[in-house]
Amino acid sequence: MYGIFSYDIASPRVGLKQDDYILDLEVVALLGYFNDLKIDPTVFAQPVLNDFIALGKPAHRAIRQRLNELVSSGTPAFSDVHDQVFIHESRVQMYLPVHIGDYTDFYAGIHHAENVGRMFRPTSDPLLPNYKQLPVAYHGRASSIVVSGTPIRRPKGQFLHEGKPVFGPSEALDFELELGLIIGKNNPLGESISVEEAEDYIFGVTLFNDWSARDIQRWEYQPLGPFLGKNFASSLSAWVMPFDELESFRVAGPPQDPIPLPYLQTTGEKHFSFELEVCLQPAEGEKICICRSNARYLYWNFAQMIAHHTVGGCNLNIGDVLATGTISGSTPGSYGSLLELSWNGERPLHLSETTTRTFLADGDTITLHGWGFLNGVRVDLGDVTGTIYS
Amino acid sequence: MYGIFSYDIASPRVGLKQDDYILDLEVVALLGYFNDLKIDPTVFAQPVLNDFIALGKPAHRAIRQRLNELVSSGTPAFSDVHDQVFIHESRVQMYLPVHIGDYTDFYAGIHHAENVGRMFRPTSDPLLPNYKQLPVAYHGRASSIVVSGTPIRRPKGQFLHEGKPVFGPSEALDFELELGLIIGKNNPLGESISVEEAEDYIFGVTLFNDWSARDIQRWEYQPLGPFLGKNFASSLSAWVMPFDELESFRVAGPPQDPIPLPYLQTTGEKHFSFELEVCLQPAEGEKICICRSNARYLYWNFAQMIAHHTVGGCNLNIGDVLATGTISGSTPGSYGSLLELSWNGERPLHLSETTTRTFLADGDTITLHGWGFLNGVRVDLGDVTGTIYS
Repeated sequence: MYGIFSYDIASPRVGLKQDDYILDLEVVALLGYFNDLKIDPTVFAQPVLNDFIALGKPAHRAIRQRLNELVSSGTPAFSDVHDQVFIHESRVQMYLPVHIGDYTDFYAGIHHAENVGRMFRPTSDPLLPNYKQLPVAYHGRASSIVVSGTPIRRPKGQFLHEGKPVFGPSEALDFELELGLIIGKNNPLGESISVEEAEDYIFGVTLFNDWSARDIQRWEYQPLGPFLGKNFASSLSAWVMPFDELESFRVAGPPQDPIPLPYLQTTGEKHFSFELEVCLQPAEGEKICICRSNARYLYWNFAQMIAHHTVGGCNLNIGDVLATGTISGSTPGSYGSLLELSWNGERPLHLSETTTRTFLADGDTITLHGWGFLNGVRVDLGDVTGTIYS
Repeated sequence: MYGIFSYDIASPRVGLKQDDYILDLEVVALLGYFNDLKIDPTVFAQPVLNDFIALGKPAHRAIRQRLNELVSSGTPAFSDVHDQVFIHESRVQMYLPVHIGDYTDFYAGIHHAENVGRMFRPTSDPLLPNYKQLPVAYHGRASSIVVSGTPIRRPKGQFLHEGKPVFGPSEALDFELELGLIIGKNNPLGESISVEEAEDYIFGVTLFNDWSARDIQRWEYQPLGPFLGKNFASSLSAWVMPFDELESFRVAGPPQDPIPLPYLQTTGEKHFSFELEVCLQPAEGEKICICRSNARYLYWNFAQMIAHHTVGGCNLNIGDVLATGTISGSTPGSYGSLLELSWNGERPLHLSETTTRTFLADGDTITLHGWGFLNGVRVDLGDVTGTIYS
């Protein structure tokens, strides 16, 4: 996984995570290990991954192959310079890995959409008629996306109390378990990306927590969608898993019925099996994992999201984030938000004998974990964590 | 008004519009006219206004005062260098004036909101219960905002035909008459901006056309708001009117009943009287002005928009665009979109004896004009124009 890190007096730079160490790619480049690859070493000396991403997938593969050769056992290449190129993670500070021009949030978790529909429109079909025809999405706020670990301030805002609008700190602060795609290639304004080409536009995948203030959101969102209920913060993992390294996690998605229009039709395994987990650590007391889900529960796949996003000519740029929406499973223990886990506050979650939660309390830390299995060995996506304060 | 322009072999730079000429502020700075103001001349040699905006209002006022002295009659300062500093507008190319980190679109035109409500929810109150309690808004797409004059490609997308989803070129392409605020100062994430401070965060005002595909929008927008119906393009004027120069256009806004919550309460004249006009030039035939409106018809004022946007801690950045939403008046000739002017296509607009429009045809050029009066003299906001093609 790639990220941006600094240590000691070294300025932010591109790193590759290797277990508990981070390989300093600027130093590797300056030591000459990439010389024959014709890669400009300054792309590694940047505070965001965007220039590195812009090198393109052939360059990324060449770099990755070179690094694999260098770190593979039996190759002495890095042995003389081990302490120069491998920095222990305890010494580093991490940064938001990309400059994000635009952020889009999909609604591709069908169990989440059904649960929300059941709660808020109990007398009608939980899914609206468009849900299975197109990947519903909205534009979110890019400026307030922060790197994992950044404390999250409880937003104040306007919401209803006994039917009257009041102003105050949100009383229904929530997390959302999502994946974020990091866009790896630009398309020109006016040109669309087909489902066949779409995966080539993904640089990598991260964990993403789209913090939500449900009381603010519920009062404001008609008719134009979420605004202040979402835009106070979203948390992105410091680590981006390159899309190339996800091949062995591919699985088939759920059957799509009705069959979508041709521009959204995909073949083959376009979903990915990542185990996902959400854990809550209260200010006092034990950390409890409150949700276990899987990325394969998404209704729409990544290729469909990208093809739909661009079908009208909208231009994506390197570093843009496309988040999936909340990934819930079909059973209560797999719900990816407190809104669902506490069923809109009706069923408090018991963290211990004395501690319950409907929504988040100040001091609560939420951590999302994600992992897959490669030949039986667990491969971690980077965690994303944040602690609530007022 | 400030903008970014180039000419001959000169790279994009900051200009000040003076009637039919553009004052080249990089050249003015290099000639030493700002030396005693301690302004770094490189802020004028940029392809966007962001660095210039970041100088702050005291610097902008000092620059403006110096320029006023230099160009006022009787001062010979520029007479020797007239052709170096004044570039005729026929010679220049204009650019998007700012790098836009995030774009927000409000819904502050109450007559537009009422018209849309009457069309789409004919049996209930045209305004939803939140409309007069808070300035409804949504996040839009920043990457697809283009400078005035850029051709606009008709988007393809998914919409309903006789109740079934189909894919094709939008059959309900529309414009929206809006103003755009350009943000002039950053607020830190987690900190709000009060209504009293809010106007100090506005660098300037522009005309803004939020192109909309009504058929796509109508099918996709529940429950999370507009997405592909809007994100294929928006057009921003090349010229930004500094907020400081709007003082004489201040007027009182409409009475707000109910009185909003304290964080949204403003006093004094916080609305602005700009005459607004929309003209349609078909590929063949005469240009017809189809709408005449005024910015004073907005329900919510700029200070309320900014205070609301940030009340939960959302951070605004220099160059962000906050658009007002469609500014319609209360009478049919003042409606700021074809959706309203043709009443959802039911009442075609007669452009000539043989030409009608419900929505836009390929080859149509839409131009928004705006102006105010200062001591009886018309002061123009920059136009914004775009031609539809497929």
